[in-house]
Amino acid sequence: MNYQQILENIYQEIQPFAGIGKQADYIPALAKVDPDQFGICINTIQGETFMLGQADTRFSIQSISKVFSLAVCLSLEGDELWKRVGKEPSGTAFNSLVQLEVEKGIPRNPFINAGAIVLADILLKHLSHPEEDFLHFIRNICGNDTINYNEEVAVSEREKGYLNAAIANLLKYHHNIENDIERVLHFYFLQCSVEMSCYDLSKAFLAFANHKQPFTFGDINLTASQVKRINAIMQTCGFYDEAGEFSYLVGLPGKSGVGGGIAAVYPLRYSVAVWSPRLNRKGNSVMGIKALELLTTQTQESIF
Amino acid sequence: MNYQQILENIYQEIQPFAGIGKQADYIPALAKVDPDQFGICINTIQGETFMLGQADTRFSIQSISKVFSLAVCLSLEGDELWKRVGKEPSGTAFNSLVQLEVEKGIPRNPFINAGAIVLADILLKHLSHPEEDFLHFIRNICGNDTINYNEEVAVSEREKGYLNAAIANLLKYHHNIENDIERVLHFYFLQCSVEMSCYDLSKAFLAFANHKQPFTFGDINLTASQVKRINAIMQTCGFYDEAGEFSYLVGLPGKSGVGGGIAAVYPLRYSVAVWSPRLNRKGNSVMGIKALELLTTQTQESIF
Amino acid sequence: MNYQQILENIYQEIQPFAGIGKQADYIPALAKVDPDQFGICINTIQGETFMLGQADTRFSIQSISKVFSLAVCLSLEGDELWKRVGKEPSGTAFNSLVQLEVEKGIPRNPFINAGAIVLADILLKHLSHPEEDFLHFIRNICGNDTINYNEEVAVSEREKGYLNAAIANLLKYHHNIENDIERVLHFYFLQCSVEMSCYDLSKAFLAFANHKQPFTFGDINLTASQVKRINAIMQTCGFYDEAGEFSYLVGLPGKSGVGGGIAAVYPLRYSVAVWSPRLNRKGNSVMGIKALELLTTQTQESIF
Amino acid sequence: MNYQQILENIYQEIQPFAGIGKQADYIPALAKVDPDQFGICINTIQGETFMLGQADTRFSIQSISKVFSLAVCLSLEGDELWKRVGKEPSGTAFNSLVQLEVEKGIPRNPFINAGAIVLADILLKHLSHPEEDFLHFIRNICGNDTINYNEEVAVSEREKGYLNAAIANLLKYHHNIENDIERVLHFYFLQCSVEMSCYDLSKAFLAFANHKQPFTFGDINLTASQVKRINAIMQTCGFYDEAGEFSYLVGLPGKSGVGGGIAAVYPLRYSVAVWSPRLNRKGNSVMGIKALELLTTQTQESIF
Repeated sequence: MNYQQILENIYQEIQPFAGIGKQADYIPALAKVDPDQFGICINTIQGETFMLGQADTRFSIQSISKVFSLAVCLSLEGDELWKRVGKEPSGTAFNSLVQLEVEKGIPRNPFINAGAIVLADILLKHLSHPEEDFLHFIRNICGNDTINYNEEVAVSEREKGYLNAAIANLLKYHHNIENDIERVLHFYFLQCSVEMSCYDLSKAFLAFANHKQPFTFGDINLTASQVKRINAIMQTCGFYDEAGEFSYLVGLPGKSGVGGGIAAVYPLRYSVAVWSPRLNRKGNSVMGIKALELLTTQTQESIF
Repeated sequence: MNYQQILENIYQEIQPFAGIGKQADYIPALAKVDPDQFGICINTIQGETFMLGQADTRFSIQSISKVFSLAVCLSLEGDELWKRVGKEPSGTAFNSLVQLEVEKGIPRNPFINAGAIVLADILLKHLSHPEEDFLHFIRNICGNDTINYNEEVAVSEREKGYLNAAIANLLKYHHNIENDIERVLHFYFLQCSVEMSCYDLSKAFLAFANHKQPFTFGDINLTASQVKRINAIMQTCGFYDEAGEFSYLVGLPGKSGVGGGIAAVYPLRYSVAVWSPRLNRKGNSVMGIKALELLTTQTQESIF
Repeated sequence: MNYQQILENIYQEIQPFAGIGKQADYIPALAKVDPDQFGICINTIQGETFMLGQADTRFSIQSISKVFSLAVCLSLEGDELWKRVGKEPSGTAFNSLVQLEVEKGIPRNPFINAGAIVLADILLKHLSHPEEDFLHFIRNICGNDTINYNEEVAVSEREKGYLNAAIANLLKYHHNIENDIERVLHFYFLQCSVEMSCYDLSKAFLAFANHKQPFTFGDINLTASQVKRINAIMQTCGFYDEAGEFSYLVGLPGKSGVGGGIAAVYPLRYSVAVWSPRLNRKGNSVMGIKALELLTTQTQESIF
Repeated sequence: MNYQQILENIYQEIQPFAGIGKQADYIPALAKVDPDQFGICINTIQGETFMLGQADTRFSIQSISKVFSLAVCLSLEGDELWKRVGKEPSGTAFNSLVQLEVEKGIPRNPFINAGAIVLADILLKHLSHPEEDFLHFIRNICGNDTINYNEEVAVSEREKGYLNAAIANLLKYHHNIENDIERVLHFYFLQCSVEMSCYDLSKAFLAFANHKQPFTFGDINLTASQVKRINAIMQTCGFYDEAGEFSYLVGLPGKSGVGGGIAAVYPLRYSVAVWSPRLNRKGNSVMGIKALELLTTQTQESIF
């Protein structure tokens, strides 16, 4: 498959969507990003790399970090994890409190904010140096030792993070947070602040696509079955209340972030990361989703 | 892959689950079925068939019929269809009215009851002889001219169908039913009453698995892309509020019915149908789900 | 107290509100009413009557009939009644299905549609000639033998009554309707179709205001305590999701109807009925509520 | 009316209810109260006082303090207040987040926790020394200069107050809290910690019953109309999701607290306060409600 040519075709075809949507602007660090950027990178399990646009520019991965949290938690806890978080699509916005109250503090899945806050709490329990260890895992999985948190972003998020603080307090009320709330929120926002390029993300997600290879990064190990199950959760829960739409249009497991990034995998074929800051009303990258839809349409390859 | 041997292994391994759960008993015709039956059938796209247990025994396919409705509707309406029904997982039970009221009469997806009732209304608009035409499509897709409705089941369902009547009235109130309510409900319940064996269902679903082949059955045609998108919807919405769990454990697009049947596809490999009447609390076959979980685990094949 | 002078003052003061709001138009019989009518009538427990405007013109009492249903049901069932219907404010619109589903078919109170449909079912159980007996009670309580149902209205309501049919089916599903659904709905809509004037309604509600007098109308008897409790339910539940607002502004127990009527009582002082077809967004008469607010403000008399 | 004799009768009749229910035990200070205490005090507008049991023992007034907050806020803001808080019954538990999220941060009424937290924020805006000024108002209205906060209770409440912190964060997210969250919560919990006896409370509530007298306490003034409207809100919203039941059984405006106290008013007749720590499942005093029900039944006096 000539992926480079396909990427170039896609790039032409998505131009009519340029300028549509609005980047996240609830914190200054996101608001000041040039919204009219676009990058995409594919890594195949054969070891090829295909890139286009600003694929080397780092951006705030935001909720894409939840996939890394889930991988580490699943490695540390195994299926015990599912006692504290579900694996069903939420059917509601990523930050809804309603469901959490009705379901007594057990978040629907690890990819809504409530779920990822519980994951942060679990990581704090297991890791001796949580911030360092988590960063170390990401550096390992993408093979880039310069990946880092953006502390300024994390601090801004906490300052504006009333809704996540409401969620964390509700979780604590239902005994589903063990650590101090501020400690958990600090770590959660730090995870969201990680900055990676499309190239970095695609390299990282190759580990999820290529489950014939051992998933071993430092102390973090997953079986092939566990990797596949993470992919399954990405498929059903990776795009908030647009998960069905993404599954319908694109047909790949993936995860989006409010920074405009999307990472997806075609199991045993390739991983792909795309980035463009302008978001649709559901909080997902307009050009990113369009590009991935064209990718699976033009290659006629999807998991379905 | 020696599927026959795998089916036999699976059959041994699921024996500890025999007797767990309870069959649907809200109508006499379902209540009187011997609950301790089990059948499974795989059809590969190479044309092989593997069967075990009561794979030739017909049962009430119930909600599995919603996949056939969706196929016919999508063929007739194309993407216009999505103006009247969504494609997001519901996150709630299959028969919930809450979401439907909040979302002003647009059902979340075609596989919850509300969605399928809208599909029935759409079919009534397009088909000149709806009952005959729908049955004809099923007979065509599975290659068995003896497939039929069970009128007694359909009548019993209507008599007890207060909740579905509530749903239909609410849809009508929101102008999402065009035909007479009783007409729509009659057709809806008739669809659910279709009786097929695991062999029949597996043959029918092969058309969804094998999207390299033209999907053409009489007047009903779908493009490969449309078939893949039906698979995508099965993946995210096929098991009510257990869709995430099924995706996690089994990793195949599929659809269950309250009669104890499940049909699933491994795109470009095989289709599989399994049947066992005892249900878990979510209304899905206990042994059916277990068998499929073992199938994808032992073959190490899933879409993820 | 010179009520006649006060009524005349009120009439002047509400003129700025003339023309605001829109009458109910979901059925032809309501849509064709001249919306710019206004009538009001006070009856004191001393036997005085004060009237102004179209106080003798009959209109569709609609949901005000629910107070009569409650009175008859409470007479027939006593506190057994509360096993099938609650007495808490609903906090939602009068026709919401959400709460009913969550609370398993027990309507929040007798004055939302679901509650009144259950009352209709209860009346059908007890009364040998339900339609005649119910009408007979109303004729008795207001002392006017010419009061009647408007069959045309009842038929129109049923034809458009998808939401109430949804509610009735949901109640039946939860085993809180014993009779045939169509039978119950027919009787329910017939009750709503009763036509009375402000004078008639005010006379009828005098029986609730004057609980020192025996409440005995044919076979229907209530104790003083039961009458006071009906007033209490009017206070907390009489105006759908505007009950708090009405209580705050007016400070009297009352009940409104979508025909533009409101009946209210000042216990041991007077009853009042007001009518004007234009409704606010909550479905209550704009001029009616304003007139009652002015009445309790100018008389400086309210239950608080 | 021989209220003293009636109180003695009531005391006998409620004995069968002794020992039913459980006191609040979510903080040590409440858990250690002897649950088997009972006190009641009536103050008439003629100046008589009737007491029985531990009517002089101080207890934590908890949510009864919300009535004082509302009085002060209404004095300071007038009807502007209703832009930030509603006046409809909530139909849900006192601490529900669901409604608050759905209604975008405008609490249903001032007597649910969310509403009272908004009131605390409003008081912080207006009062130069909020803690002192609020306490001063209470001391004035009950005529007892020794009334005080219980700082230990306030601190314990904050430590366990995850749900209220979740509510405050959600309010802040919706821009309905102006001050720092911790500042608001500290003041809110301090208000709840006020300790008063039945005698004190009854004296304080006499100001709401006796609206012929000027409501003037230091800088805090209310018109008769405003006082009556506070009574109206007590009637519809004073008992969480048991407001309808209390209205039905007792027929007086009132407010309960989780410390086991209830204060109620019979406008232009008397105020009454009752206290007994054992609560029913809705969080209201078992013996307290029973005593008030008997009071209005035996005196045959209620607002209805």
